[in-house]
Amino acid sequence: MTPSQSTSLNMGKKPLMMVTRYINRVIKVRLKNDLVYEGVMVDCDGYMNLVIEKAVEYEGEGRKATYPRILIRGNNIMYIQLLPMLGE
Amino acid sequence: MTPSQSTSLNMGKKPLMMVTRYINRVIKVRLKNDLVYEGVMVDCDGYMNLVIEKAVEYEGEGRKATYPRILIRGNNIMYIQLLPMLGE
Amino acid sequence: MTPSQSTSLNMGKKPLMMVTRYINRVIKVRLKNDLVYEGVMVDCDGYMNLVIEKAVEYEGEGRKATYPRILIRGNNIMYIQLLPMLGE
Amino acid sequence: MTPSQSTSLNMGKKPLMMVTRYINRVIKVRLKNDLVYEGVMVDCDGYMNLVIEKAVEYEGEGRKATYPRILIRGNNIMYIQLLPMLGE
Amino acid sequence: MTPSQSTSLNMGKKPLMMVTRYINRVIKVRLKNDLVYEGVMVDCDGYMNLVIEKAVEYEGEGRKATYPRILIRGNNIMYIQLLPMLGE
Amino acid sequence: MTPSQSTSLNMGKKPLMMVTRYINRVIKVRLKNDLVYEGVMVDCDGYMNLVIEKAVEYEGEGRKATYPRILIRGNNIMYIQLLPMLGE
Amino acid sequence: MTPSQSTSLNMGKKPLMMVTRYINRVIKVRLKNDLVYEGVMVDCDGYMNLVIEKAVEYEGEGRKATYPRILIRGNNIMYIQLLPMLGE
Repeated sequence: MTPSQSTSLNMGKKPLMMVTRYINRVIKVRLKNDLVYEGVMVDCDGYMNLVIEKAVEYEGEGRKATYPRILIRGNNIMYIQLLPMLGE
Repeated sequence: MTPSQSTSLNMGKKPLMMVTRYINRVIKVRLKNDLVYEGVMVDCDGYMNLVIEKAVEYEGEGRKATYPRILIRGNNIMYIQLLPMLGE
Repeated sequence: MTPSQSTSLNMGKKPLMMVTRYINRVIKVRLKNDLVYEGVMVDCDGYMNLVIEKAVEYEGEGRKATYPRILIRGNNIMYIQLLPMLGE
Repeated sequence: MTPSQSTSLNMGKKPLMMVTRYINRVIKVRLKNDLVYEGVMVDCDGYMNLVIEKAVEYEGEGRKATYPRILIRGNNIMYIQLLPMLGE
Repeated sequence: MTPSQSTSLNMGKKPLMMVTRYINRVIKVRLKNDLVYEGVMVDCDGYMNLVIEKAVEYEGEGRKATYPRILIRGNNIMYIQLLPMLGE
Repeated sequence: MTPSQSTSLNMGKKPLMMVTRYINRVIKVRLKNDLVYEGVMVDCDGYMNLVIEKAVEYEGEGRKATYPRILIRGNNIMYIQLLPMLGE
Repeated sequence: MTPSQSTSLNMGKKPLMMVTRYINRVIKVRLKNDLVYEGVMVDCDGYMNLVIEKAVEYEGEGRKATYPRILIRGNNIMYIQLLPMLGE
């Protein structure tokens, strides 16, 4: 294999660090039980615990509920949708 | 990507620290098995173990039971609903 | 957010420490499989392993069995019902 | 809350240490899959791994099999029935 | 057994290090729940958390959705398809 | 409680150490999914990972397959049947 | 019990070290969900993460797919079939 330049550039960068860059922006989180939460992420930690404000809960196609602020326990998460920022 | 100001402001803040700020206030906890507990959180720790007083247990739409004080084991938790405080 | 006085008073207190205060008193433990055990807790540790004496086992509404002494493995626990003490 | 005397007496005692006191005596172990094993516990460790001799396996009301010696992996255990000793 | 030369050559190399070599290339990830995500991996960490851009989601034979950027939590992953590079 | 002599004799002995004494002898391993493997254990480690040679696979009453050598991942194990040695 | 010679010879040998000896040889991996992957193992690490090349995927009796290179996450593994080498 030929080492690629991108590897040396990216090694050491941590996805969780990338998450902290989305603080105060809208994210969408899908849990292992297929519930989805969309809202403004106002906090996160190294366990992927997330605090989301103005969270809308979806199940399948439908909107189920809204919450002013929820703390999602990281180990329930399947993936987080991040929206690329302008200029990226 | 352009680093955002919010990142530097928020990095290091921990959701679990935010939870301790809700001590002695009403929270609502949803477990992975969809049971919900609402009451006054009087204690918590780094495993997200929570002690709730005057806890009301809900399943779906219905109220099932009340408990003077329960300790919920953190690893059962899906999310915690936190109510923003006045002035926040 | 405005830091609340209660936070500074309670930070550092651990639910598991609170459990040790219930040693030699009656507790009720609900497991993830919905079995419930009620009896005198005579010992506990940092994994939430509990030793209960004169334990009564319930499933749904019915009483199923009694045990002179059982050690419940902590990671099966959903929550522990603690009864506030007189004077609390 | 009023600290109880029993707390100070019992803090630090570990259930797993209590288990070691049952070495060479009969215990009954119920696993998460509801299989039950009864026999003489001849060894144990800090993961709650147990070695049981002359083990009888039960499923529901029925006896299924016997084993001269089995090592049960601790993380399968729901609870261990301990029989109080004479004089306790 | 006869130690093979390849062992001494490969010991110490870590699959997760191999993953970092695929940064900025297309990978396909299959999760434990059989959902599949294909796209450009732009970041990864030691928990196998992966950030994928232009991610296409598949379920069975069908394409379900696309996402500009998602962070997949490592513990959901069954396997990652890596495409050998030219010259390997 | 009265401390028993056997406790002091046995404390500190580890089941996993006992397993190493069965190296090169026949064991029978039952997994959480009820598959059973019987053969000569030629290696083991502290995670209860086991290497078994001439392994016969059973499901329920029937023999399903044989393998010259398999490495069973420890966290799948429910219990290991150990056969007491002559003279024990 | 009588300590056996084999114990002293084998203690300390680690199955995962044994796995590294199979690098560049054909192995067959069965996952907890009963999918099977067969191919040349080109890398592995201490979490039992494996990189397999020319991997053939089987489900039950049937061949489902082939992959030039996949990284299987270790915690999905039930067992690895290792083929004894000539001369062993």
